Amino acid sequence: MQRYFALKKIEQEFILEEKDYHHIKNVMRMNESDEIEVVIDQTLYLACIQNVKENMKIIEVKKLKEEKTEEKKYNILIPYLKEQKLDFILQKATELGVNTIYLVPLERSIIKEKEQNKETKKERWNRILKEASEQSKRLSVPKLICISNIKELENLEGLKLVCSTKEKENTIKKVVKKNHLCDTINVIAGPEGGLTEKEEEQLINMGFIPVTFGNRILRVETVPLYILSILNYEFME
Amino acid sequence: MQRYFALKKIEQEFILEEKDYHHIKNVMRMNESDEIEVVIDQTLYLACIQNVKENMKIIEVKKLKEEKTEEKKYNILIPYLKEQKLDFILQKATELGVNTIYLVPLERSIIKEKEQNKETKKERWNRILKEASEQSKRLSVPKLICISNIKELENLEGLKLVCSTKEKENTIKKVVKKNHLCDTINVIAGPEGGLTEKEEEQLINMGFIPVTFGNRILRVETVPLYILSILNYEFME
Repeated sequence: MQRYFALKKIEQEFILEEKDYHHIKNVMRMNESDEIEVVIDQTLYLACIQNVKENMKIIEVKKLKEEKTEEKKYNILIPYLKEQKLDFILQKATELGVNTIYLVPLERSIIKEKEQNKETKKERWNRILKEASEQSKRLSVPKLICISNIKELENLEGLKLVCSTKEKENTIKKVVKKNHLCDTINVIAGPEGGLTEKEEEQLINMGFIPVTFGNRILRVETVPLYILSILNYEFME
Repeated sequence: MQRYFALKKIEQEFILEEKDYHHIKNVMRMNESDEIEVVIDQTLYLACIQNVKENMKIIEVKKLKEEKTEEKKYNILIPYLKEQKLDFILQKATELGVNTIYLVPLERSIIKEKEQNKETKKERWNRILKEASEQSKRLSVPKLICISNIKELENLEGLKLVCSTKEKENTIKKVVKKNHLCDTINVIAGPEGGLTEKEEEQLINMGFIPVTFGNRILRVETVPLYILSILNYEFME
């Protein structure tokens, strides 16, 4: 069943984005009384469509499910990247259950944050996150946080890992197993060419633990998917 | 350093594909006596370039490394897919250390094998595998095997897993941990809409074990990357 995230709920009616009403009517070509799934406040509802032709209304039928709030949170921190790579990461990370994606200005990144941090781009990124959440039947849309200085990561809560090219002993597996009870896991990955020595040092001083993935050489856009896949696996029951 | 896979080695000279000579000369713009890495028979050599301008020769400088042959083999079995998705899987699976990729005709796949199994397509797929192997510094190029009937999977060796949509108890984690000593792990994933009940039954009769990934809903092209990531993680030292 098609799923949409609502903007708000007023009594029994869900208010969607304009684009979603258009999607229901003109793309999905739904009819009067057809049912859809609607998510708001991490809660899933069954809803039905009324007045398809004019002034469409989406009305609650029943509550289906609330998200367990005790789930672990996986956050990835990545450089500003070229459009295609970033879009790819946003979509795949959403499928793989990411909680928050931080975009971090890093020295070796080709894309500079100043050119990126524009409202139109953010809107576009958030649209990708919302659509991927609907497709993969999530009950929440990942958060996207654009930061403008690496120092802002100082106050990040939870386990903090940095993908290091220098570290040889401490595998991500060893460190995750040692910290099995933490609620939130943050992993920062560098751009092509990796983090600079200075950046890695800065992060370590802020409490990040350097880890290695073993001997695979992965492209920048593959790393977040690898991280999220293994975290899902590690905490699978 | 740039890496190339050689076609053969005659005494001290490596014979490359025509395209690679072109790449060295006109794309990388290398000069007389510049060094490159060359791989043949799972062995890595340092080599140098002679006669760049006319009748270029690639001459061995020294042997650098042979691949440990005791590595575990990860094979993925996937449906014939649309070009963009398949290209993506070939590239990412290579980065993540896949050994063999089987293309399997499956009922719900939109792309039919008859339209696909052409020499030009195979050449293209193999080129993607070779280039991704060079980029990710592998010592071998993954094999691509196009099969034309699911029954051919009968004789596949090693642990055989099928991504099931019905299985709820047996997670991939439980089954992999139970079979930790196997040399080869094969995992088959279905097209959009999954394997049919009949296909799943056929595979189970051939010795495939049905497994679940937990409750994530992944796109078809994300599944092989997820599988390879978690196998790398599980067998990481």
